[in-house]
Amino acid sequence: MTLNILLSARSSLWEPYAIELPRACAEAGLEVALFKPGDVAEDEVDYIVFAPNGPVEDFSGFVRARAALSLWAGVEQIVGNATLTMPLARMVDSSLTEGMVEWVTGQVLRHHLGLDRHIVNPEHAWQWVIPPLARDRVVTVLGTGALGAACARALVALNFRVRGWSRSLREIEGVESFAGEDGLLEALRGAEIVVTLLPDTPATEKVMDARAFAAMARGSFLINPGRGPLIDDDALIAALDSGQLDHATLDVFRVEPLPEGHAFWAHPKVTVTAHTAAETRVSSAARSVAENIRRAEAGEPLIGLVDRGAGY
Amino acid sequence: MTLNILLSARSSLWEPYAIELPRACAEAGLEVALFKPGDVAEDEVDYIVFAPNGPVEDFSGFVRARAALSLWAGVEQIVGNATLTMPLARMVDSSLTEGMVEWVTGQVLRHHLGLDRHIVNPEHAWQWVIPPLARDRVVTVLGTGALGAACARALVALNFRVRGWSRSLREIEGVESFAGEDGLLEALRGAEIVVTLLPDTPATEKVMDARAFAAMARGSFLINPGRGPLIDDDALIAALDSGQLDHATLDVFRVEPLPEGHAFWAHPKVTVTAHTAAETRVSSAARSVAENIRRAEAGEPLIGLVDRGAGY
Repeated sequence: MTLNILLSARSSLWEPYAIELPRACAEAGLEVALFKPGDVAEDEVDYIVFAPNGPVEDFSGFVRARAALSLWAGVEQIVGNATLTMPLARMVDSSLTEGMVEWVTGQVLRHHLGLDRHIVNPEHAWQWVIPPLARDRVVTVLGTGALGAACARALVALNFRVRGWSRSLREIEGVESFAGEDGLLEALRGAEIVVTLLPDTPATEKVMDARAFAAMARGSFLINPGRGPLIDDDALIAALDSGQLDHATLDVFRVEPLPEGHAFWAHPKVTVTAHTAAETRVSSAARSVAENIRRAEAGEPLIGLVDRGAGY
Repeated sequence: MTLNILLSARSSLWEPYAIELPRACAEAGLEVALFKPGDVAEDEVDYIVFAPNGPVEDFSGFVRARAALSLWAGVEQIVGNATLTMPLARMVDSSLTEGMVEWVTGQVLRHHLGLDRHIVNPEHAWQWVIPPLARDRVVTVLGTGALGAACARALVALNFRVRGWSRSLREIEGVESFAGEDGLLEALRGAEIVVTLLPDTPATEKVMDARAFAAMARGSFLINPGRGPLIDDDALIAALDSGQLDHATLDVFRVEPLPEGHAFWAHPKVTVTAHTAAETRVSSAARSVAENIRRAEAGEPLIGLVDRGAGY
């Protein structure tokens, strides 16, 4: 029996999911027909797959729908929608964390190994420079929530000497943990690579300021895949210019895309990446949706089922 | 009691070990005095630390020496030296393997993530390109000896879909194993990243030839930290020029340093690194030597004790 799936999302999301969702459903052994809102009678829809900012806001006509599956992890915008009476599941998908771990590990190894000197080598110099081993290299991760902890664990597995800092102490196996205002400079002291993965709050604004850069090892590296406001941009440029920092790789900025003419673009010691570190992969998220449809059809519990009373 | 250590090595090795060895001995709780050949009476030397190509070849005068500790892992040049009558240990140190794992993992992640497009970006383009996840990326490691197997395991830990190939089948957990002539093209088929870590033998010469490159995925990457002759250089350049390969990162060459004017230097799709992937770290090797001196003083068995009958 073919299942009718309504996909309600803006076109930038609709288009990739229109390719990946039928593919993932087929892999899960499901026969599906995918529809845009308006292309199918509401009372013939079996499952609703939707982005909270998509076109459908009134779900009362979908009387046959057995579940509403959100493409977003956060449900605060939809949990109060009184027309959503069927079981509701938020997106649970590891691809954002996996992608972040890969990006952070890649950037840490790039700076640890000094890859840039070979990638940009117009003089064709035979540069026989042997880096220290990871086990002799201190890497500090600021922010040890789900993403930071996953990155810290991957770096420990590669033998780095990893320190973690968070507002309240969190123990991670193999990681030296620091916490609170007092612990911050201690966690940064002598660090050769610092990764900033803190949330953007008034307390974390400009956490990487002149004092923080001064605490790091001379010639060290900053990697920011977290939030733009974590960095005091002027202090960073001063630290790069003085040689206190050797290089900064920044994936997030106060204004994105980073405006042409911003000092970071032209600075020889800054690498700008385009907010690509943390991104849910459509192919992976589509597999998560397909798995939930398979579960609903089999009478198994949905992954990420929202408890409307608790609000998440 | 101060131990007299003779350090016999050419100056390129003598100088770093003269710094690192006393440091490592102090860390191991040993009080030592370090001497060059000729600066100490032979019959006052407690331990001989030596490179087989160093100045001392006749060890018969070192009647008090309690052990001879080689700075090389290979002992084929010294095991037959009849004047070496004291216990003889070869270098056992994990730093070469650790360094190789870090280098290979870093280069694989660099190509996997497409870091170069951000490192070299003179147009200041905001390049929002999301790579696939490691779990959707096939990496093939040719050669699954000690180094190749260690690299394969590190890549599995990062979720890559890893294939291994060797002349005779070797099973590694999480790695899809291939072997023999027939298995080679199968192991390469559709691979997006290939790492060559085979020894240099008549059978492995030009193992990466036109047929091998054609088997890989279109737009794929070659990483060679193994040996220069594994690659058919002309076939590689043809594969890069046709777009079959996107990039090659080469650490080893038929002639080193790679001569100025070689096609690899100027090719926009080739990164030349300076035979830095596999290198024993002096600080680490010095700690291994210090540990063996500590063991000898404590009456514990030496690590890497050579069995002269067996020849290794």
